[in-house]
Amino acid sequence: MRNDLAPFFKPNHIAIVGVTRSESSFGGLSFLQKFQESNFPGTLYCINPKATEIRGLPVYPNLSSLPLVPDLAIVCVPAAHVPTVLEECGRIGLRYIHILTSGFSEIGTDQGRQLEEQIASIAKEKGLLIIGPNCMGPYCPASGLTAWGAIPGAPGPLSVISQSGSITQRLTEYAYFLGIGTDKAVSVGNGTVLDTFDFLEFMGQDENIRVIALYIENMKDGRRFFDLAREISKSKPIIAWKGGKTEVGARTASSHTGGLAGEQVIWEAAFQQAGVIQVNSLDEWMDAVLAFALLSPPSNPGVFLIGGGGGSSVVNSDTCIHEGLDVPSPSFATMKKLRETVPIAGSIAGNPLDDWQTYVSSDYLGTILDLVCADPAMGMVIVSRMIARKAFHMYSQPDSIPAIIEQVKRRNHQKPVVFVVDSEGGDPDLAAQGASIRQEFGKGRIPAYPSIKRAARALMHLYRYHNRLNRIKRRSL
Amino acid sequence: MRNDLAPFFKPNHIAIVGVTRSESSFGGLSFLQKFQESNFPGTLYCINPKATEIRGLPVYPNLSSLPLVPDLAIVCVPAAHVPTVLEECGRIGLRYIHILTSGFSEIGTDQGRQLEEQIASIAKEKGLLIIGPNCMGPYCPASGLTAWGAIPGAPGPLSVISQSGSITQRLTEYAYFLGIGTDKAVSVGNGTVLDTFDFLEFMGQDENIRVIALYIENMKDGRRFFDLAREISKSKPIIAWKGGKTEVGARTASSHTGGLAGEQVIWEAAFQQAGVIQVNSLDEWMDAVLAFALLSPPSNPGVFLIGGGGGSSVVNSDTCIHEGLDVPSPSFATMKKLRETVPIAGSIAGNPLDDWQTYVSSDYLGTILDLVCADPAMGMVIVSRMIARKAFHMYSQPDSIPAIIEQVKRRNHQKPVVFVVDSEGGDPDLAAQGASIRQEFGKGRIPAYPSIKRAARALMHLYRYHNRLNRIKRRSL
Repeated sequence: MRNDLAPFFKPNHIAIVGVTRSESSFGGLSFLQKFQESNFPGTLYCINPKATEIRGLPVYPNLSSLPLVPDLAIVCVPAAHVPTVLEECGRIGLRYIHILTSGFSEIGTDQGRQLEEQIASIAKEKGLLIIGPNCMGPYCPASGLTAWGAIPGAPGPLSVISQSGSITQRLTEYAYFLGIGTDKAVSVGNGTVLDTFDFLEFMGQDENIRVIALYIENMKDGRRFFDLAREISKSKPIIAWKGGKTEVGARTASSHTGGLAGEQVIWEAAFQQAGVIQVNSLDEWMDAVLAFALLSPPSNPGVFLIGGGGGSSVVNSDTCIHEGLDVPSPSFATMKKLRETVPIAGSIAGNPLDDWQTYVSSDYLGTILDLVCADPAMGMVIVSRMIARKAFHMYSQPDSIPAIIEQVKRRNHQKPVVFVVDSEGGDPDLAAQGASIRQEFGKGRIPAYPSIKRAARALMHLYRYHNRLNRIKRRSL
Repeated sequence: MRNDLAPFFKPNHIAIVGVTRSESSFGGLSFLQKFQESNFPGTLYCINPKATEIRGLPVYPNLSSLPLVPDLAIVCVPAAHVPTVLEECGRIGLRYIHILTSGFSEIGTDQGRQLEEQIASIAKEKGLLIIGPNCMGPYCPASGLTAWGAIPGAPGPLSVISQSGSITQRLTEYAYFLGIGTDKAVSVGNGTVLDTFDFLEFMGQDENIRVIALYIENMKDGRRFFDLAREISKSKPIIAWKGGKTEVGARTASSHTGGLAGEQVIWEAAFQQAGVIQVNSLDEWMDAVLAFALLSPPSNPGVFLIGGGGGSSVVNSDTCIHEGLDVPSPSFATMKKLRETVPIAGSIAGNPLDDWQTYVSSDYLGTILDLVCADPAMGMVIVSRMIARKAFHMYSQPDSIPAIIEQVKRRNHQKPVVFVVDSEGGDPDLAAQGASIRQEFGKGRIPAYPSIKRAARALMHLYRYHNRLNRIKRRSL
């Protein structure tokens, strides 16, 4: 198994090869600036034969003139000069290299393809480990390696392996805001030397990582992916978003990362057989990450719905069923207890439960959760919490989120309990309020989703993954 | 055709029958309070035999003691007393009645059903027009009839006919925040006397209404719905959300509005044949309303995608195709012009167009829109605008939304041009900023959606509706 990639994520000395002085361009200088802003704890070396000082740091004319051999080189020089830099890396024994530069096979020219072949052959000859070209490279908040993104990020159970830098950045930021940190992420670009599979193999055996999120457009070796994914998904979930599923998407993918995206049906079948969770949007990806990072396995697909409003109960049931879950009738014993507990006026006892008291008292909500979690037909619970507005003549304010979080934690039901805080409605204040509440739940280690649909789909992914694992375990007994 | 329902939406004198003094309960008092807060311009009469003054208004013991016959009675007394009130309405010639009270067939008891039958027979005998029971009744911002909701609302092209008060409230508020006002809305509840179809017939011929949104759980006469919907949808779109599509949803619906929800497949086929646009969530409903209220008909399903980022271009293409649109290759002439216009460095000319210049200059964006709208293969355009963050080393700020709106208006392409402002990512500030920008676009009469998926689905509904109409027109020539 691949175990030589760890140094990419914990460099003490980084050389940035090709730091220009122009403030406006994307490249070596912007990486340097980000590292400085995020207080990278190691040493940064700038390489530029035409400068002596940039942003307060001494500048070296080339890698050979550095006082030591850095742990990592970030190569930002124009494509045509990349081979020369790699030759130099080989000479000084610098093996870990990230090539940011684009202009290789993805631009579709002969020259681009030839340059990329040169990268591959130099790497082979000199034993270089290369991420890229045409990508954002490694990311690791615990090491201060956070040159991407608008936020510093935080360590946590997530790993992201991706063929798109911007999509990776969005997922790591999204997860961060919901209280889920990232252990390691990598944007692999064209994957000329090290590709998605190398990092999948490496991260699959990394004990700090509990959830692997994958964005993939193409692969060279389907069999290797299948074998790897099947093995890894037995111990940790791989949540994959495949770009270029459609013909047009595939055409676009070839000008993005230079590869062929392949047949959708083959991918889907391979993913399914290997136990890979398939998603189709950033939201669905994040929702699944949140569920897998925070929830215990559901024993069955039955969901108990606690919500407000008659119409909402109807459409929420429809949505859960549509997403592949069940909304089972409570057992006789549960119904008896519900009828004894739920007030007759203004509420409807059953599943869905339309009961406004769950909204105004967290302690009462806790009692209801105890009651329904005791029913074996209920594998999980979704609690829908509308945000209180001066709407529908509702004067009472809901109780506080910390009190609800405390109730859910304390009662510790060993069944997934998630919340829905729907704040869509065009109102910027409501949007911000909803996002804040969902963030508060996430930081309290309870998933909160913006819609029933998104909650139901995330729970469905969670259920199917564990159900498959259980079947495998039973078969192997 | 039904033309006697207009007085429900323009009452000058409203009697609220059953105004209690208890501040906390939902009912007559909360309606009175809402009317007072929203400065209802007509006169409000409170009926309560045990009080003389409530909230500064004189209270009358019964309808017969009022100085005049009101235009509308809102009946809020307990279910068992409703028949007596209706008899009195009949005696004084008060024909327009909204029954707020619940506790009829929807609670599933014999007494409930009998009371509802009494309502029907008194209405028949006395010629009463009744909305309800068990509902929020009529809503019309132009008449100050806005007793529901957290906001006053505004007049506009939308009509909502619904079996759920809370769902209606959410749609009208949502539309309001995006700059789409409501002409008339009605929550029909159990529909004992006047049902969904009566209001569909009435609103279908109302010239102020350009888009009809329908939330329906059950119907008594499928044939009538089909004939009505087929006729109305020739001149205005009916966007329908069917609650109780699944068996569990249908079971829930019967305890919500007392009816049977029926078979999903039959509904779907009937909707399709009648030209009704079918949606399955509040968001999809709103997205379609926005498209139909603001956009001209697309001539074909080809969409030109203007966006940012290689990975995004790949998955955005996938999403549009998945939603039923095409992402056609530009014509030879268009490609030639794109290559002459789009900068080579950092951009990819084609469809999708990955071109950062569209992001920093509204004038340049206008040029690109001219260029691609001239291509007959492009039936519509989606412009994806990420919100600028200090991410990905992007230092330049995007230009202002008013400048973009002005460009789109001025160039007047006669093809749907919509924006995507995706602000999902867990960050409350970003969520608020995204909602504000979408609101600004909406108020500028340009739809802006929170995701490519939602934009693509709304455009697909728009295209399919007009494509069907065109086929009908061609057949009838």
